[in-house]
Amino acid sequence: MTGGSRRCIVVSTLAEACFYADHGFDDILYAYPLPFDKVDICAELAERLEMFHVMIDNELALAELAKRRLKDGKAWLVWQKVDCNNGRVGVRPEDPAAMILAKSIMECEGVKLAGVYAHCGNSYRATGLEEIQAIAQETTTATLEFVQKLEEAGVKCPRSSIGSTPTCSHPIPDMARLSELHPGNYVFYDIQQMMIGSCQMDDIAVRVLTRVIGHYPHRNQMLVDCGWTALSLDSLGKLPTGYALIDGHPELKLVGMTQEHGKIEPTSGKLDFNKFPLGSLISLIPYHACATAAMHPVYYVQSEGRIVAEWRPTRGW
Amino acid sequence: MTGGSRRCIVVSTLAEACFYADHGFDDILYAYPLPFDKVDICAELAERLEMFHVMIDNELALAELAKRRLKDGKAWLVWQKVDCNNGRVGVRPEDPAAMILAKSIMECEGVKLAGVYAHCGNSYRATGLEEIQAIAQETTTATLEFVQKLEEAGVKCPRSSIGSTPTCSHPIPDMARLSELHPGNYVFYDIQQMMIGSCQMDDIAVRVLTRVIGHYPHRNQMLVDCGWTALSLDSLGKLPTGYALIDGHPELKLVGMTQEHGKIEPTSGKLDFNKFPLGSLISLIPYHACATAAMHPVYYVQSEGRIVAEWRPTRGW
Repeated sequence: MTGGSRRCIVVSTLAEACFYADHGFDDILYAYPLPFDKVDICAELAERLEMFHVMIDNELALAELAKRRLKDGKAWLVWQKVDCNNGRVGVRPEDPAAMILAKSIMECEGVKLAGVYAHCGNSYRATGLEEIQAIAQETTTATLEFVQKLEEAGVKCPRSSIGSTPTCSHPIPDMARLSELHPGNYVFYDIQQMMIGSCQMDDIAVRVLTRVIGHYPHRNQMLVDCGWTALSLDSLGKLPTGYALIDGHPELKLVGMTQEHGKIEPTSGKLDFNKFPLGSLISLIPYHACATAAMHPVYYVQSEGRIVAEWRPTRGW
Repeated sequence: MTGGSRRCIVVSTLAEACFYADHGFDDILYAYPLPFDKVDICAELAERLEMFHVMIDNELALAELAKRRLKDGKAWLVWQKVDCNNGRVGVRPEDPAAMILAKSIMECEGVKLAGVYAHCGNSYRATGLEEIQAIAQETTTATLEFVQKLEEAGVKCPRSSIGSTPTCSHPIPDMARLSELHPGNYVFYDIQQMMIGSCQMDDIAVRVLTRVIGHYPHRNQMLVDCGWTALSLDSLGKLPTGYALIDGHPELKLVGMTQEHGKIEPTSGKLDFNKFPLGSLISLIPYHACATAAMHPVYYVQSEGRIVAEWRPTRGW
């Protein structure tokens, strides 16, 4: 993902930032509204790394940074988060508070404005190329216009970034004018992204393998050893195939899950139990790879059926 | 929970069984339909511990046990799972297959029938004492009648067990005739159990602390640093207060969650942002403690506001 550079990464928890910093990564952006209890650890990272970036969307967060000056005259690298119709974090660029905050960052001693950052998570409500690219255009235009407004007002803003897997999977020409993009889910992709239109089925690089542990002909169901501790509840079971897609078996539906059990039945007709002997493996394609990945202490990386690596993600905050 | 004995515990994953065995526990029941790929590890535990119990509901699982004889003439301790209208794992006791399996276990060399086990997870669909106790009675009666049928047929069955937090929270007299009970969730309780009628609000011993990280008056919302990685999606957001109950603030609703963000707004009227300054703490009472607990690498145990212990649960399978 970094082409071997181990630079220029975005994380969403401080635990991830520390994990990557401990493993030789640098130029890390903690793209999360600065939690005030974590300023000290952020400061340590900022002092230790060449570049550790934080993100804020309000004056009080800036005041927290100003209170904790970095050693050796180093400046905090601050991204200003703008909300371009996503409706989660950020100041709306049309809100006068956006310009005021940018000026405050510029004028604040020990702090540098590194860039403007927008997350277009609203692209998850899109279906198909046209809707995805309309959101990409809207977010890019709003971000670039805000950067231009800053420059016209004398606020130097070196960088700009938008992101989300749907928009970055189908970039529009104007996105080349941004300095960086920040998708995340694309590493795996999943059924949700396929339904949005970000990817094709063949692009989905994650599976949960589960084993048949019970046959119940009287209720036309079999059980597998995968419950929500292995898959998450993210789909809410609303897919035509239930909580996941069963690889190679569109005729099956994962109808229910408890903590460690999954119930599978046919979408119609009688289940052919002979095709799924007790102990045999079934491969599930997750609805939301991020949610599923969060449930696992280890990912087995395979190439042509052979395990070539094990990835152990970090947890917590 | 074991009164210091470190004996007589039930686990639902083999990882938990190993974790407890490694920490001096014994007499462990792995109350999960034996996954065929885990027979070897089960055998090692059975050989190493004084008592390690497994659970089966079919003849093929018995054959897997028979294939892997334990060392030193030790016998596999096998519980037969029966399904008393829960509809997940187990043979229905009225199904002739139930008696046939019990006889097979008895006759199988190297294997001992330890008991009959029913899980009344259907009590989660109950509301109030009467419905809970009706399910407790139904499950207990069906289990005890099956045990009696076994004895009449010459099949010695030393033990019997039913369980679920709702039924064990309101036991009926006949449950005293069982040899053991196996609730799990009661350790913490949660909003779901309160709604079922298992407990009162004061019994709920788990909270997720989260911090206010954003104020958005234009949409009457604030953000907290708790998303589904910290709370799980288990409630599906269907509570009148959304994804959780906000401790001490019945006027607030956790209306949405993404991976690391939670959106809180008032159930009606304007949010008083002064009451919830940026950086301040909010305490969430989870809908389903099991699902929330599964998301955390550490639990902070507190007594009168002081942290007195840290619990690090095991993960995986």
